Amino acid sequence: MKFERAAIIGLGLIGASFARALKKHSLAEVVVGCGRGIDNLNFALERGFVDSVTQDPIKAVADADLVVLATPVETLEEMAASISGHLKADSMVIDVGSIKGELVQRVQSLMPGGVEFVGCHPIAGSERSGSSASVEDLFKGAQCIITPTDSNTDEAVGRVRELWEALGSKVSLMDSMEHDVLLGLVSHFPHLAAYAIINAIEDRSEGAIALSGAGLKDTTRIAMSPSALWRDITLMNRDNIVPVLDAFIAELEGIRTSLLKDDASGLEAILKKAEARRKSIEG
Amino acid sequence: MKFERAAIIGLGLIGASFARALKKHSLAEVVVGCGRGIDNLNFALERGFVDSVTQDPIKAVADADLVVLATPVETLEEMAASISGHLKADSMVIDVGSIKGELVQRVQSLMPGGVEFVGCHPIAGSERSGSSASVEDLFKGAQCIITPTDSNTDEAVGRVRELWEALGSKVSLMDSMEHDVLLGLVSHFPHLAAYAIINAIEDRSEGAIALSGAGLKDTTRIAMSPSALWRDITLMNRDNIVPVLDAFIAELEGIRTSLLKDDASGLEAILKKAEARRKSIEG
Repeated sequence: MKFERAAIIGLGLIGASFARALKKHSLAEVVVGCGRGIDNLNFALERGFVDSVTQDPIKAVADADLVVLATPVETLEEMAASISGHLKADSMVIDVGSIKGELVQRVQSLMPGGVEFVGCHPIAGSERSGSSASVEDLFKGAQCIITPTDSNTDEAVGRVRELWEALGSKVSLMDSMEHDVLLGLVSHFPHLAAYAIINAIEDRSEGAIALSGAGLKDTTRIAMSPSALWRDITLMNRDNIVPVLDAFIAELEGIRTSLLKDDASGLEAILKKAEARRKSIEG
Repeated sequence: MKFERAAIIGLGLIGASFARALKKHSLAEVVVGCGRGIDNLNFALERGFVDSVTQDPIKAVADADLVVLATPVETLEEMAASISGHLKADSMVIDVGSIKGELVQRVQSLMPGGVEFVGCHPIAGSERSGSSASVEDLFKGAQCIITPTDSNTDEAVGRVRELWEALGSKVSLMDSMEHDVLLGLVSHFPHLAAYAIINAIEDRSEGAIALSGAGLKDTTRIAMSPSALWRDITLMNRDNIVPVLDAFIAELEGIRTSLLKDDASGLEAILKKAEARRKSIEG
C-alpha cells in the first residue's frame, strides 16, 4: 500500500502526527498539509512533517488519492461539502474524529460517485494541541475504530484497515452508533469528570490544587485539553453522555451515603469493585 | 543530622521507600524494619532496604532514636500506645499518614515525657503497595507537610524539617485541621471520584474500559489503589470530604444542564475555567 499524494486537512496534534507517521512508514510519496494557522503550517513544514502546505483545502485535495479530514469534528460535514467537488476520482477519504453516529453517513452522502468515505477514530492523543504536539509514533499500539456504513465496500474498508495497521494501530470495526455510546463512556464523559474535579476543588479552596501529588495530576491531566474542542464533542454526543453522567452522580451519592452512615462495608464494596475493574486493564 | 538506629514500623510502599532513602542519604547507622507480613519483611531485607527485620514493634523501637510510624493511619493511635512504654528517652517519633486533624494531638499525648511526636505527611506514593513497590527517591521533589502541635518544640520541628529536606522533599508547615481540609480536597476526594468513574462506565457497559486510551487510564490510575486503605482514610476524613462531594455533584449537574439545554457558552465557561486552573499547576 502506498499513496501518491496524501492531503491532511487540519494539522493539529492528530493530523500532524498522521502526516509524520505516513512519511515514517513511506506510505505516501507526497504529503500535503492544510490548515488555517500559518505559523502552525510553517512549523510543520520546517520540521519536515509534511512536504508542502496550503491554507486552501481545495488546493490540498487536488490530485490527492488519500484525504484525511482532521479538523475539529463539528466542522467535518462542512469541510467534506467544500472539498467534495474537487476530489480525485477513486480517492479515499477518511476522518479521525471522536464522533461518528449519523455523521459518517451524512459525510458519505456528500462524496462524489466513486469516492468512499470511511470513518476512523484513532484512540490516541494527549491534552496538548497543534502540530508542535505531534508524535511520529502516536498511533503505534493505539486502538483505532473504523465505523463502516452500508455505502462502504469491503475493499475500501480493507484498505483503510491496512493503512492503520501499517501505522501500528490495533484496528476494530464497530457500528457508528455503538461507537458513540462507547466513546461517550470511555472518553467524553471522563473529560467532563476531570474538568469538574478541578472546579469542585478550586471552588472549595482556591489554590488548593497546588498541593497536588502525582495522583491528582494524573486524574486531571485531560482537564488541560482544549475546552472548546470538548465543549463541541460533548454537545454533539450529549444523548449518550447524559445517561452516564446520571449514573456517575448516583454512584457518588452512594459513596456519600456510605460516608455519612459510617458504613465501612458498604463503602468498601463500592471501592473494591472499582479497584478490581480498573486493574483488569493495563497501564 | 544522623540517627544511630531508625525503626520503620510498617514496610509498605511509604515505609520501605523511607528506609531506602535513609540509607541512600546515610542518615541512619542502622535501619530496622517492622511489619506483619513475613514475606514482605524478607523481601525488604534481601534487597537491602533495611538492615534487620522484626514482626515485633516493641523490639523494633528498642534503642531507636528515630521511629517512623508507617502503618495504615487507622492503626496509628493503637500502635503509638503499644510502643510508647518502650521508646528510648529523647527519641523522635514521626508518622507519614494521610490524616492529621485531632489525631496528632492524641498520639502526642501517648508519648512518654521527653519524646516528641511530630506529624508528617509526604505527598508521595502510587497506586501500588508493599515494599516491592518502594522507590528510593520517592520523596525527592515531593511535598511534605508537617503539622506541629502546641506540644512540639521548635527544635524538634526543625529537626524533622531538616530530615525531610535531606531526603529532597519540599517541606511546609500546616495546622493539622487545615491539613485534613486540603488533603480531603486534593487527595481523598479525587480517589473517590476515580473509583466512581470506573463504576459508572462499567455499570453502563461492562468491559467498555478495555477501550480506554491514555486519557482515561491516567484519570483512573488511582482507582487501582488499595480500596481498604481508601475506605479507612475517607471514613476518617468524611466531614471534610462530603462537602466537596456535594460541590462536585453540583458541578456535574451544571454540566448536565448545559448539555441538555445545548448551552454551548455555558458549557464552555465551565470547561474553560477548569482548563485554565489545571494549567496553572505543572505536570
